[in-house]
Amino acid sequence: MKKGIGFYNVGEIFDYFMLIKSATKGVASNGKPFLTLILKDVTGEIEAKLWEATPEDEELFQSEQLVKISGEVNQYRGRSQLKIHAIRPAQPTDGVHAKDFIEKAPVEKEELMSRLTEIIFEMKNPNIQRIVRYFIKRYQEDLLVYPAAVKNHHEYVSGLAYHTVSMLNIAKELKRLYPEINADLLYAGVILHDLGKLKELSGVTAPSYTLAGKLIGHIPMMVEEIGQVARELEIEGEEVTILQHMVLSHHGKAEWGSPKPPLVREAELLHLIDLIDAKMNMLNRALEKTKPGDFTDRLFAMDNRSFYKPLFEE
Amino acid sequence: MKKGIGFYNVGEIFDYFMLIKSATKGVASNGKPFLTLILKDVTGEIEAKLWEATPEDEELFQSEQLVKISGEVNQYRGRSQLKIHAIRPAQPTDGVHAKDFIEKAPVEKEELMSRLTEIIFEMKNPNIQRIVRYFIKRYQEDLLVYPAAVKNHHEYVSGLAYHTVSMLNIAKELKRLYPEINADLLYAGVILHDLGKLKELSGVTAPSYTLAGKLIGHIPMMVEEIGQVARELEIEGEEVTILQHMVLSHHGKAEWGSPKPPLVREAELLHLIDLIDAKMNMLNRALEKTKPGDFTDRLFAMDNRSFYKPLFEE
Amino acid sequence: MKKGIGFYNVGEIFDYFMLIKSATKGVASNGKPFLTLILKDVTGEIEAKLWEATPEDEELFQSEQLVKISGEVNQYRGRSQLKIHAIRPAQPTDGVHAKDFIEKAPVEKEELMSRLTEIIFEMKNPNIQRIVRYFIKRYQEDLLVYPAAVKNHHEYVSGLAYHTVSMLNIAKELKRLYPEINADLLYAGVILHDLGKLKELSGVTAPSYTLAGKLIGHIPMMVEEIGQVARELEIEGEEVTILQHMVLSHHGKAEWGSPKPPLVREAELLHLIDLIDAKMNMLNRALEKTKPGDFTDRLFAMDNRSFYKPLFEE
Amino acid sequence: MKKGIGFYNVGEIFDYFMLIKSATKGVASNGKPFLTLILKDVTGEIEAKLWEATPEDEELFQSEQLVKISGEVNQYRGRSQLKIHAIRPAQPTDGVHAKDFIEKAPVEKEELMSRLTEIIFEMKNPNIQRIVRYFIKRYQEDLLVYPAAVKNHHEYVSGLAYHTVSMLNIAKELKRLYPEINADLLYAGVILHDLGKLKELSGVTAPSYTLAGKLIGHIPMMVEEIGQVARELEIEGEEVTILQHMVLSHHGKAEWGSPKPPLVREAELLHLIDLIDAKMNMLNRALEKTKPGDFTDRLFAMDNRSFYKPLFEE
Amino acid sequence: MKKGIGFYNVGEIFDYFMLIKSATKGVASNGKPFLTLILKDVTGEIEAKLWEATPEDEELFQSEQLVKISGEVNQYRGRSQLKIHAIRPAQPTDGVHAKDFIEKAPVEKEELMSRLTEIIFEMKNPNIQRIVRYFIKRYQEDLLVYPAAVKNHHEYVSGLAYHTVSMLNIAKELKRLYPEINADLLYAGVILHDLGKLKELSGVTAPSYTLAGKLIGHIPMMVEEIGQVARELEIEGEEVTILQHMVLSHHGKAEWGSPKPPLVREAELLHLIDLIDAKMNMLNRALEKTKPGDFTDRLFAMDNRSFYKPLFEE
Amino acid sequence: MKKGIGFYNVGEIFDYFMLIKSATKGVASNGKPFLTLILKDVTGEIEAKLWEATPEDEELFQSEQLVKISGEVNQYRGRSQLKIHAIRPAQPTDGVHAKDFIEKAPVEKEELMSRLTEIIFEMKNPNIQRIVRYFIKRYQEDLLVYPAAVKNHHEYVSGLAYHTVSMLNIAKELKRLYPEINADLLYAGVILHDLGKLKELSGVTAPSYTLAGKLIGHIPMMVEEIGQVARELEIEGEEVTILQHMVLSHHGKAEWGSPKPPLVREAELLHLIDLIDAKMNMLNRALEKTKPGDFTDRLFAMDNRSFYKPLFEE
Repeated sequence: MKKGIGFYNVGEIFDYFMLIKSATKGVASNGKPFLTLILKDVTGEIEAKLWEATPEDEELFQSEQLVKISGEVNQYRGRSQLKIHAIRPAQPTDGVHAKDFIEKAPVEKEELMSRLTEIIFEMKNPNIQRIVRYFIKRYQEDLLVYPAAVKNHHEYVSGLAYHTVSMLNIAKELKRLYPEINADLLYAGVILHDLGKLKELSGVTAPSYTLAGKLIGHIPMMVEEIGQVARELEIEGEEVTILQHMVLSHHGKAEWGSPKPPLVREAELLHLIDLIDAKMNMLNRALEKTKPGDFTDRLFAMDNRSFYKPLFEE
Repeated sequence: MKKGIGFYNVGEIFDYFMLIKSATKGVASNGKPFLTLILKDVTGEIEAKLWEATPEDEELFQSEQLVKISGEVNQYRGRSQLKIHAIRPAQPTDGVHAKDFIEKAPVEKEELMSRLTEIIFEMKNPNIQRIVRYFIKRYQEDLLVYPAAVKNHHEYVSGLAYHTVSMLNIAKELKRLYPEINADLLYAGVILHDLGKLKELSGVTAPSYTLAGKLIGHIPMMVEEIGQVARELEIEGEEVTILQHMVLSHHGKAEWGSPKPPLVREAELLHLIDLIDAKMNMLNRALEKTKPGDFTDRLFAMDNRSFYKPLFEE
Repeated sequence: MKKGIGFYNVGEIFDYFMLIKSATKGVASNGKPFLTLILKDVTGEIEAKLWEATPEDEELFQSEQLVKISGEVNQYRGRSQLKIHAIRPAQPTDGVHAKDFIEKAPVEKEELMSRLTEIIFEMKNPNIQRIVRYFIKRYQEDLLVYPAAVKNHHEYVSGLAYHTVSMLNIAKELKRLYPEINADLLYAGVILHDLGKLKELSGVTAPSYTLAGKLIGHIPMMVEEIGQVARELEIEGEEVTILQHMVLSHHGKAEWGSPKPPLVREAELLHLIDLIDAKMNMLNRALEKTKPGDFTDRLFAMDNRSFYKPLFEE
Repeated sequence: MKKGIGFYNVGEIFDYFMLIKSATKGVASNGKPFLTLILKDVTGEIEAKLWEATPEDEELFQSEQLVKISGEVNQYRGRSQLKIHAIRPAQPTDGVHAKDFIEKAPVEKEELMSRLTEIIFEMKNPNIQRIVRYFIKRYQEDLLVYPAAVKNHHEYVSGLAYHTVSMLNIAKELKRLYPEINADLLYAGVILHDLGKLKELSGVTAPSYTLAGKLIGHIPMMVEEIGQVARELEIEGEEVTILQHMVLSHHGKAEWGSPKPPLVREAELLHLIDLIDAKMNMLNRALEKTKPGDFTDRLFAMDNRSFYKPLFEE
Repeated sequence: MKKGIGFYNVGEIFDYFMLIKSATKGVASNGKPFLTLILKDVTGEIEAKLWEATPEDEELFQSEQLVKISGEVNQYRGRSQLKIHAIRPAQPTDGVHAKDFIEKAPVEKEELMSRLTEIIFEMKNPNIQRIVRYFIKRYQEDLLVYPAAVKNHHEYVSGLAYHTVSMLNIAKELKRLYPEINADLLYAGVILHDLGKLKELSGVTAPSYTLAGKLIGHIPMMVEEIGQVARELEIEGEEVTILQHMVLSHHGKAEWGSPKPPLVREAELLHLIDLIDAKMNMLNRALEKTKPGDFTDRLFAMDNRSFYKPLFEE
Repeated sequence: MKKGIGFYNVGEIFDYFMLIKSATKGVASNGKPFLTLILKDVTGEIEAKLWEATPEDEELFQSEQLVKISGEVNQYRGRSQLKIHAIRPAQPTDGVHAKDFIEKAPVEKEELMSRLTEIIFEMKNPNIQRIVRYFIKRYQEDLLVYPAAVKNHHEYVSGLAYHTVSMLNIAKELKRLYPEINADLLYAGVILHDLGKLKELSGVTAPSYTLAGKLIGHIPMMVEEIGQVARELEIEGEEVTILQHMVLSHHGKAEWGSPKPPLVREAELLHLIDLIDAKMNMLNRALEKTKPGDFTDRLFAMDNRSFYKPLFEE
């Protein structure tokens, strides 16, 4: 069997379970109601139309419901669509569980947490260490389950922590290659840079933007919170200003949401490491679903490029 | 007599007092030391070279020293320069005072303060009113003397308060013309929008940027402080988020330093009112020194345009 | 009852009169003809499909016809659509009139005209006054009914005059706050700036662009006409050139259609006042239809932003 | 002997006549007055400093004076400068004339005029022909001596007429290659496109911009005048609008000063032909002064590029 | 009879032969399969839906099949669509041939070839001549049938050779008008500039991009091949580098795919001539299908402009 | 003693040896000749004026001459300048050597070479390995001494090889963190990406751009050479095209000189690794000369930013 819906091609018959991500009612040109379902498993999503939907269908097929569905994968206006042959809610006797249909990071929460703890333990600068430790303690629970974004990259359970730990790994290697780097500063920047997303996004499953997320954004919110934590811990000194600057500048340019560009060496590196890990995440997941000799779908967050997967091996 | 150095033309003889803004030592191509003086009064600045400067000259002619100077206004590489005929430090018997040579706002501090108090008094929303009142109390002293910027517009003593009050006047008229406006929100936005400059700039005379000013900037610093003040006052609710948004977005675009563009009606208005008052300040001061039928100097902060002063009267 | 179609939400039943703005015939996927109707009243527009339309329907339901219609407001591809339950032409006995279904300015023509007259009366510069008076006389009839644009802002009956008078109100207040302003020049600029639209647009109801509008545009057309009027009135002097410059530069930048940027103080102000009134018009109308706590639709002419309507009151 | 100053290299001795383009008085660092002379002949310009200038020197060496000068070509801050060995006013007995030191088009006025007349004679559309003929008659005198610009290309006596005739030659060939072209329209566009420069520029020798040139610009001025001429000739119809559009759009883009881009085939061609002739004029003149194997100076109006002159022959 | 599908308007009945360019299966909202056909003749393309398509229909109506079709031209979402009344495959007895339905250049291959030969024969520089001759010999067959692009301009049989020869004609005239031009260099640049398209595109009918076309592009591929040919012919010297530069820079700017802008006079001209011929090709073909007094469709490759076709004649 | 000229501040006295990088003659305003010397050691450069230079001075003080010089570091127009107290050519008895005054990479040639050999040895794909090995063999000598650029980063002896090896180190770590990477491809891309500089630059000491460097650039030159080498080695297959693409796209965007953006995962990574190493090289060298609490000079190749060096330690 295929790994999941993300691996099916046009013309193939899908016949397994998926989770309903959203269900929207519409009226067809013949005047009859229908449901537009977005279905997903851990490998991707697909749209399906349930024509001539009855009121019972509307009751049964709602968001978060696990369903058994069979149908043919078609193409409609350049996007895949599942033409439904049969659909029914999953039963307890089917032995399937909603949580197995939600994508999550490939590393367990416990391991991510222990990696974070280890890095914080290595820090030598007490001001930086105390601030970072305080944040991890305050947000530990959410940090370990939140996605890093609503789309594009690491947009799955534990995505934020996984992105953070991947970046820490790169940071650690760069410190080895360029010993001039202030490792405490760089690690702290990596750990704090996207923590504001815990307040920018509404939650873990189907996250949307909060009002403060829309009107302020995660970067200024996190700058504010670093200041507040430093006051609580009674820490003064350049470390606070520079940590705020690391977060503030990590998008690299004003046009990309950073009112100040990186003006400290470690801030510049933080921006570059963030780029590498976000791009590798997007590329690896897109290329995994692509056959050698083909191009990926267009990747919106990578300037809408399609990437080629070469035929030859290493 | 002319009003001041800003009104002298090439070829004219200046013979009065000015304040030394800066004095820098150099070595001429004949190997002799000289002093480059920047001299100013309330109407402008001019450069002058004191050739073959003695060690005594270096002692006498330093920054902040008031001097009696006579000389001819020349042109050098497209800028005015004063060719010194005679120079001496001012004496107590001259009856001139340094403070009369520093530009300041055309309205007195007391009047600016009473206008601010009056507006705050009119506010109906208690959350907004309390936050604004708290800020005015905390910063009253600095607010009444700080400039609004280091150059371009309102870059003089009390410039920030004068800019604020001018904008309040416009805001009040617009409220009358467009009654849908939430006046409390708009007034609060006007009062708070540039308060972060008190921390971004180093002081009143010859201000430079603080480290936090360079690495964070007045906008995120003020967003943080609004959050902090709200916590101190135990104010919760949308007012806090929206006041932070007003400050955050008042530069209008990401490229201009606002990570979020205005997304509330009053935030959009705040941005436009700020533009009007800053531009009118630059234009009026440049045109005051320009004869009818001439163009002003190029105004850097207005896309480097020169403006024409028509010959005809109203 | 609701104020009009602009205030109905998805799922609600509309049952009242609207005017047909346009009716287009199509062929459905079952091969049967249908009519796409755009219906409107003073608060907005909505699309409706009349399926299986008979030749009689095509006769009855044409542009400018007033109809009684009932149906349910649905969502189709992100836009509202009315699912028709019943439709019939309005009868004389219904006591409704087409003119009541066309949006128009909230101020009467007579009042707009008297405000214009009053301002012209105040002008002191005879050259400026004569030119403006001549234009008002020449175009009075059209000026009082034309819209200011085909979409985005003031796109309704008397929109141009209303926009002009609103801008004059702002201009008058700014003159009070900044007495250096040449009021005659600014008022004249406001009155003349968009008059070229009378030749750029084809008419009042359902205006489109004329050939000259498309190939020349209202700005150069108006520059030409000012020159022509000055020759007729035998007025020479800088006033003519400067009035032409005011009109030419009022879009502010070459990219926005002004081959010269504002180079006179009052031209810069004219551009800013135009921005304020156009934006307030768009914002107020969009926010009027939005509930507190919600965002408006995206506003194309405001960089596609959605604006938030706060929950709290002044 | 060298052809002129444009062909001298650093280190060479110049010893011939040149015309003083401008003379400006300055004061050297030793307090002595000096004159900065800009000298020119038909091949170029050079700066020279006349140190320790006496009042008699100031009298003798003024703008428009022809002088005999010898000196060495030096380099100063990357630009050529003539180190004066000797200088004196030219005498009648020298047998040299100011007019031979002013650059002018390589074709005589009479020939340019006869070429224009010939083209107008060929026109078939009476409306277009009458308008063009009227303009040529009205402006014949100026058209035949004005430059096409103050710098960059065709900035010499008869430059405008020469540029016009060169463009007509290209237009004629393109008509032969693409017979669909409306030749009358294209020829008329070529002849009228830059005529507004007669009002934008102040004169032939040392032209500057007029007030109308600065505030309105040659494009809208010419659009206005075409309208005015058509009214005088009582010509109505699309030809007038399209001729105005040709002039209006000939800079190609809003950013380059055309509020409408070309929207008629011949307008698009006019823009391209203008580009070709302006660029060939700049390139040929720069390359003429460059040795094979070298690069030209940077050409500001060609994106600041330096062009290479190959070593090989055709 | 009309010249072809490109000349039919909405509401007219088409009843003749067309070639199927593509046929795609879909499923209608009633669950029945249908075919989306793209049909074409030499004047244009049109979409048609064959509803309720049987398996036999799918067999019969495939890409490259010539069909007899009748139907009404409708409008659907702003684009033309043919509502099919009847359709059948063409029969031998119909006396029509697929090749007559494919657009090709208006000049025969033999004539294009003889024009190329003639130009090469005129070249004086032996290095340039040998390189160009070698290329023409190597690619003669493909060059004479390939299109110049997959869309926008000269996208038909022999389009590349026709585009080349048209550009040579312009080049020849410009050489006559500007004798300083190195004709050999310019002609060689014209002939070689787009030859890389023979490797960038997959073929003549329905061309797509090759892998090398997508990853390298025709410009660097051709630069490489000129180097390779020069080595084969044992030609050294500046001619090789400059020919490579001509090809490399002919798109004019880095943003348009030329890593170096034109830095040789003839390279600048090549870019301009390419612009002229490509634009005239697009404009003439669009205007041919447009009635006087109307605007063309939007032309994507001309900044999405619609062009006006005047009512008056030359 | 200080490490070198790069570590001296204004006001300090320098008294040691430096190498003359360039010596240019000029004429002072008093008419006397002088020499402008650019002096350097491994830590930086400084300008000095030798006033009233004799013909003997001109003989003695030429480019590449080692001199003993003492003087005071001054500031002139914002840049450091050495005011010469005494200067003389170095003598054999001084025991100093020109090569010790030229900056070079901090790693020896032999070590760089062995690191390259090691990486090539690890490659598994024979096609890639053979191509890379061939290039290293062909260019070994130059590769080990050339700089990576004429300014900005790695602009010293062995800079190209050092930059390459640093990038290989990063690449190796990323392969460990993201095992999906095709290491052969990434390593080959790193080794080849800038090899074209050996032909773009004229040499090791005081490199300038070759004609081909100016007209073609190192990127297309290297794309060509990869094709040529593959033909010589009779290697066909996707590896060649993809290696060419890696080199072609490594600047990341068309505006930055890559006609195709990265379209293969390893090409994207190559671009990012290049950015990291170039930026770290610039930052580390600038920060080494900066005191904690200060900002670096503006770094042109990093968007003209000045970077802050924090006061605190790790």
